[in-house]
Amino acid sequence: MSAVPLERTQATGERDAMARARALIDADLAGVNRLIIERMQSEVTLIPELARHLIAAGGKRIRPVLTLLAARLCGYEGDRQIALAACVEFIHTATLLHDDVVDESDLRRGRDTANALWGNKAPVLVGDFLFSRAFELMVADGSLRVLEILSNASAVIAEGEVAQLVTANDMSTDEDAYYNVIRSKTAALFRAASRIGAVVAGRPAAEEEALAMFGEELGIAFQLVDDALDYAARQALLGKTVGDDFVDGKVTLPVIIAYREGDEEERAFWRRTMEEQKQSGGDLKQAQAFLARHRAIERTLDAAVEAGQRARDSLSRFPDSTARDAMLDMVDFAIERAF
Amino acid sequence: MSAVPLERTQATGERDAMARARALIDADLAGVNRLIIERMQSEVTLIPELARHLIAAGGKRIRPVLTLLAARLCGYEGDRQIALAACVEFIHTATLLHDDVVDESDLRRGRDTANALWGNKAPVLVGDFLFSRAFELMVADGSLRVLEILSNASAVIAEGEVAQLVTANDMSTDEDAYYNVIRSKTAALFRAASRIGAVVAGRPAAEEEALAMFGEELGIAFQLVDDALDYAARQALLGKTVGDDFVDGKVTLPVIIAYREGDEEERAFWRRTMEEQKQSGGDLKQAQAFLARHRAIERTLDAAVEAGQRARDSLSRFPDSTARDAMLDMVDFAIERAF
Repeated sequence: MSAVPLERTQATGERDAMARARALIDADLAGVNRLIIERMQSEVTLIPELARHLIAAGGKRIRPVLTLLAARLCGYEGDRQIALAACVEFIHTATLLHDDVVDESDLRRGRDTANALWGNKAPVLVGDFLFSRAFELMVADGSLRVLEILSNASAVIAEGEVAQLVTANDMSTDEDAYYNVIRSKTAALFRAASRIGAVVAGRPAAEEEALAMFGEELGIAFQLVDDALDYAARQALLGKTVGDDFVDGKVTLPVIIAYREGDEEERAFWRRTMEEQKQSGGDLKQAQAFLARHRAIERTLDAAVEAGQRARDSLSRFPDSTARDAMLDMVDFAIERAF
Repeated sequence: MSAVPLERTQATGERDAMARARALIDADLAGVNRLIIERMQSEVTLIPELARHLIAAGGKRIRPVLTLLAARLCGYEGDRQIALAACVEFIHTATLLHDDVVDESDLRRGRDTANALWGNKAPVLVGDFLFSRAFELMVADGSLRVLEILSNASAVIAEGEVAQLVTANDMSTDEDAYYNVIRSKTAALFRAASRIGAVVAGRPAAEEEALAMFGEELGIAFQLVDDALDYAARQALLGKTVGDDFVDGKVTLPVIIAYREGDEEERAFWRRTMEEQKQSGGDLKQAQAFLARHRAIERTLDAAVEAGQRARDSLSRFPDSTARDAMLDMVDFAIERAF
């Protein structure tokens, strides 16, 4: 899938694996961005001010790109995918805003999120606004099928976020519980975003299901890589923070592996730092050393590569096309961030 | 409208003006309650645990009662109103959960909300879950008109909540700004709840609009009474808290009246306590004295009575019926809480 030359961005040295994907749906994506800006407006000016902070900043727009490419793959020639891709991004942004809500304990740790600037309340309410706007856009589209898919995805995301809260600081969390969390909190929206492409194109159920599966596995790969990178020292070189999950006591796959296979000293370490949240200066380094001892980062990335392969396989029923190539590039993008 | 004997509940000594309303739609309301309990379930047990705290506790269920009575008034004989009334209550509960999110400053004031028990994050995420469930229920109902009305109401509520944040601690807030806030944050859902009754019954636009207007004016009356009661010493006798809005620096109608008509000393007092949030022991008593000097509570309640009258007037096009009587009782209920 690398017939095109590798493009590396100046800033990060990362190859932009999504360049080909973006080029293909460039005009559609511009339409999505216009609609996002237009529909996040309000007479209550704090709303666009705060939303702009997150949403207009750009970002990768991975989820809307997925909707646009899936519609293209299915040979859809209308323009409904544009509003629906904007919906997907609004739902994602609302989730981000709500995910950043902090408790007193977090404030003490001196975080710097949207909340540090506006307090807790404004981001929650602006998230609600964007979420409602997403539903308004869907209603205007008029498809009950799409509404069903996205309202269900939203409920599943919220369930996943709550499940994540419950598993945090609990070292008895196992791989199954972890996968349930990421399948809900992350993969459900990828799944819905991809599936919608088949729905607008009116494709048969089997194709819809194949695209849903593609989105789901891509989302799982994406989250596994994120969770691995959170402990990867290399991230620090790229100017990204390391150890957020450790500080929060989020029990992710690398930690589950290291805890399961660790000796008594290691298990006591994880219980102290993750469960009791008693952490001091050298603990993150120590955590990284324990993870390295069990190759926990590599094994998490192996799992991401496998999920990526399942995503690729699910596209095998579709004939070769530029849209299909671009979707396969998205899998590369999700995984290559790690290397 | 008081042909039936006044019923006074043991606990509070308040007449239960809504008794007749509830009796009329008793079976429907039981259906709503069953559906609420059923649809707030999740394998993630923290969700029903937390939701139960607010939603299953009961409460007045004013908004769903409004939907049920409006459907009855319109002669509707199906059962769609039951699921839609549950939607309305879910949206309301999600709003309550999000409204309780606290900032660091609030925590310092030692509040005791759902958040004191579960932190900030869980109530936000459970609110999102209930909100998503509301949309799932609406989608299952299958009416794009209803979806349009409720998704729009949700966006307006969020806008109103943000507008309320912006006007808090700002003594330049005038009556217009205040009414915009309460029309959005409170009356929009009352309006939608009532309107839906006409929609499910397939009534003509004029009746739909009359019911929308009834809900809106009832919501305004309701909020005005709430804002008056927040300063009413009598509330303390009933075991309710007094002065929450004062502590939060919410600029409500009583304060707007007293500030507008106050002398320099009074205006300095309001600026210090509301804008600078510098409050000490005797300030609430002083605030109540200034409000009394300008009859600000009575004048706020006068405004509520006027809104209630507009609500009554909007039902004049409907022939006399037990449903109509019950809806007029709801206006009594909203206002009589104050006396």
